[in-house]
Amino acid sequence: MSHAPDEQLLPAATQAENLATSKLALRRVAIDTYRENVAYLHRDCAVYRAEGFQALSKVEVRANGRHILATLNVVDDPAIVACHELGLSEDAFLQLGVNAGHRVSVAQAEPPESIGALHRKITGERLNRDDFRAIIRDIAELHYSKIELSAFVVATNRNELDREEVYFLAEAMVASGRKLDWREPLVVDKHCIGGIPGNRTSMLVVPIVAANGMLCPKTSSRAITSPAGTADTMEVLANVELPFDRLEGIVREHRGCLAWGSSAQLSPADDVLISVERPLAVDSPGQMVASILSKKIAAGSTHLVLDIPIGPSAKVRSMPEAQRLRRLFEYVAGRIHLSLDVVITDGRQPVGNGIGPVLEARDVMRVLENDPRAPADLRQKSLRLAGRLIECDSDVRGGDGFAIARDILDSGRALAKMKAIIAAQGQKPFDHNHPQLGALTFDVFATSPGLVTGIDNLQMARVARLAGAPKVIGAGVDLFRKLGEAVASGDILYRVYAGFQSDLAFARQACAKSTGYTIGRSDEVPQVFVEF
Amino acid sequence: MSHAPDEQLLPAATQAENLATSKLALRRVAIDTYRENVAYLHRDCAVYRAEGFQALSKVEVRANGRHILATLNVVDDPAIVACHELGLSEDAFLQLGVNAGHRVSVAQAEPPESIGALHRKITGERLNRDDFRAIIRDIAELHYSKIELSAFVVATNRNELDREEVYFLAEAMVASGRKLDWREPLVVDKHCIGGIPGNRTSMLVVPIVAANGMLCPKTSSRAITSPAGTADTMEVLANVELPFDRLEGIVREHRGCLAWGSSAQLSPADDVLISVERPLAVDSPGQMVASILSKKIAAGSTHLVLDIPIGPSAKVRSMPEAQRLRRLFEYVAGRIHLSLDVVITDGRQPVGNGIGPVLEARDVMRVLENDPRAPADLRQKSLRLAGRLIECDSDVRGGDGFAIARDILDSGRALAKMKAIIAAQGQKPFDHNHPQLGALTFDVFATSPGLVTGIDNLQMARVARLAGAPKVIGAGVDLFRKLGEAVASGDILYRVYAGFQSDLAFARQACAKSTGYTIGRSDEVPQVFVEF
Repeated sequence: MSHAPDEQLLPAATQAENLATSKLALRRVAIDTYRENVAYLHRDCAVYRAEGFQALSKVEVRANGRHILATLNVVDDPAIVACHELGLSEDAFLQLGVNAGHRVSVAQAEPPESIGALHRKITGERLNRDDFRAIIRDIAELHYSKIELSAFVVATNRNELDREEVYFLAEAMVASGRKLDWREPLVVDKHCIGGIPGNRTSMLVVPIVAANGMLCPKTSSRAITSPAGTADTMEVLANVELPFDRLEGIVREHRGCLAWGSSAQLSPADDVLISVERPLAVDSPGQMVASILSKKIAAGSTHLVLDIPIGPSAKVRSMPEAQRLRRLFEYVAGRIHLSLDVVITDGRQPVGNGIGPVLEARDVMRVLENDPRAPADLRQKSLRLAGRLIECDSDVRGGDGFAIARDILDSGRALAKMKAIIAAQGQKPFDHNHPQLGALTFDVFATSPGLVTGIDNLQMARVARLAGAPKVIGAGVDLFRKLGEAVASGDILYRVYAGFQSDLAFARQACAKSTGYTIGRSDEVPQVFVEF
Repeated sequence: MSHAPDEQLLPAATQAENLATSKLALRRVAIDTYRENVAYLHRDCAVYRAEGFQALSKVEVRANGRHILATLNVVDDPAIVACHELGLSEDAFLQLGVNAGHRVSVAQAEPPESIGALHRKITGERLNRDDFRAIIRDIAELHYSKIELSAFVVATNRNELDREEVYFLAEAMVASGRKLDWREPLVVDKHCIGGIPGNRTSMLVVPIVAANGMLCPKTSSRAITSPAGTADTMEVLANVELPFDRLEGIVREHRGCLAWGSSAQLSPADDVLISVERPLAVDSPGQMVASILSKKIAAGSTHLVLDIPIGPSAKVRSMPEAQRLRRLFEYVAGRIHLSLDVVITDGRQPVGNGIGPVLEARDVMRVLENDPRAPADLRQKSLRLAGRLIECDSDVRGGDGFAIARDILDSGRALAKMKAIIAAQGQKPFDHNHPQLGALTFDVFATSPGLVTGIDNLQMARVARLAGAPKVIGAGVDLFRKLGEAVASGDILYRVYAGFQSDLAFARQACAKSTGYTIGRSDEVPQVFVEF
């Protein structure tokens, strides 16, 4: 703590006066510092010695009229950077955009414009619209160090943001990136706040509503801490990394797509913030709402159905908590002109049977093909959500959406639409009747008779993840029993698939600690009172 | 923000189950990452691929029964680390303490034990004694990443800590390092919360009270953001980096020392926290109190006189603020069994004339030699503080300390003591009658007649710093006029010394923006009502 005796604070702002412009040769240092620009200077570099830089100082690197900010690391090995060189980490090198060997100048950086606003937030002040714009712009342009990002995330955590500030934050995130305009009055999307394994409803909702003629340009994320994201599962069936122009063409022709979202540069500050939120495991309502809604507005959506699952091992564990979250979503959506329909759903257990990319793709295809082995809960939930989206069309009477969605699914029109989208994105060889699952397996059995009274979402995700999902696409967990079903002692509860012996061992170890299942009496099955 | 659709959170705790122990060859990567352990793995390294590590993951590195935690950077250049190697940054390499080439194993790290407590603090909960102990121990052992450190600093900022928590924090900081025991009933120290340039009273108080026979083992810091710390100024006169054993011998023989504090491993968590507090410029009362008092307890002090200067450009700007801070210091000192005497002092302007190591050393020596050119305010303030320390001796009547201190100074006993301490620490060649000042100078003049009604501490510090202090020890600012003194138009206000043309230019630029002086009428001189 910087309370040195007799210490005078030199406000960072004035370091900008210290603008040296010594020329160094640019070097690309092949280190991935994950969305933080890092500059490397040799300890004996004349500029380093003269400027009084310190490790972790912020420096400004200029070349060719371009400039970036970076955090300084000091190097003692000329094999990494020599005395006459300035090294940049991968991200920083790409951002500066000049060739290795180019002459660059370096100076103490002016602190990012928005640092004053960050400090005010740290001390607990309320920020205004301009403050959030300045902060989010600096974050999107990688002007913040990891330390400053982390300070922002903590200072805006939990109840530190009032709902108008959440709106300002969402709006600033939209402003920091590109915004798509589909030039249609109705652009629909669905989103789930996450936390439920196997919950691949998007892959059913999109073909259903697109088959109904509604525009649904769905982009999804890959798994960050889960055993599969929608992008990972869709990638089993089709190419999901498409240049934006091609994606746009597909959406225009087929009314829908199922692609990976990160290439479109929508709400780029969000991706930067994830880099510190992930290691901190911070998950605050304000940040969640701003993040989700900003991405939807940037993607050009006009109508959103939002799925908030509740259950004992879901992200949201009680109805009052779900209602608070719903109100915050609705307030911000209203301010940001997004028509929002929040659906609170059953999050007591995984959705469908499979957990992991291939297993989930199998479940999705079974539902589309009206296969009798299709998981009923995945089908039902997808129809409900699709129905709600269909009711966004003002020509549809409230309550009629479900039946329309079911007709589209039962008639095979949803399957046809999915096949068209898959073909357009680039089909992959996948036979869901003979899915390529991990070659190594073990089964987990009931050790006592009774009813399944609990399936822990977190533990099932953990087991699937340890078994190798999503990296090993055929790895994961296949559930044989769901909540409320009767089991006899020795009945199989689920099967674990892995691609490697070590993964199998890790998963087995986790299952030995806890199977994730509880077996009990029928009155012990937890109840949630949700709309469906 | 990590709100991917259909995303399941895998609690970090369970990653520990993923314990691979593949062997790699250790490599020292000569990058100074400033108190954050960083590990480097090649992207094509089998372990990296198999383990599903991500950039910024926390990994545990083991060798020879020792282990450290580190943040992972992914490398694409075998010149930095090859596929069969694991690289460690300087700090991390030293901490692991095995030779390059040694076989090491690496695995996903268990998150630091105290992460749960950190998360509770982030959400605004009150922490208990054990929580603080766990957090501070993890910080001292470099188990926290910069992101986690930053989260802790922000989450405990401002009024986030109640006073008992500040006590827990201080106590935990003491527990994290070594604690000196001088085996004497009275071990005295003085400390200033900082912010006032030229305020080198320690270099006068220590010889005075040591000459009075009191034990005063003073360790000081170097400048972090100021133009000089006590250690920088003392280093003009004597060696300040001494092995602890020698320091102890000097203190036993001479009753005092003036050394640099960082080598003693007192309250090591503090030095780690500085690494993020400095770039964040966070300065909260709770952290300040815990930091200062923990260092004093660890150094074995029993009695402390604490200097809180107030003034329009001081750290503390009003008497109510100073009183609040005093009460917090007193509460924590009481709990931690340190006898504390808080003195609120005049912080309206720099103390003494010189700002910068050599100039300040000159002022100090002039006071010790009773030179008529000695700055009266530095002499007076030092005598007052020394007097308060002398009154810690229960044989001294309250009010008598000042006269005793003055006798010691006027009689030359303080000078003799200082000379003895300098000789013991290792004298440097320095003639304060002909100090080696920067060869380049410019003067700043009054542009209108009147009285000096303001001298901005921050601006004077900034000018001295830009001129090259403390790196260039002869650089800085020499004040010719102080508060309340009359000036005619064209009178010199201060002289700036620099060692390099570029530094001189930066300082001149800053002075052109603002001289730091205001000239006005006598009734415009700000008043502060302090004890002296």
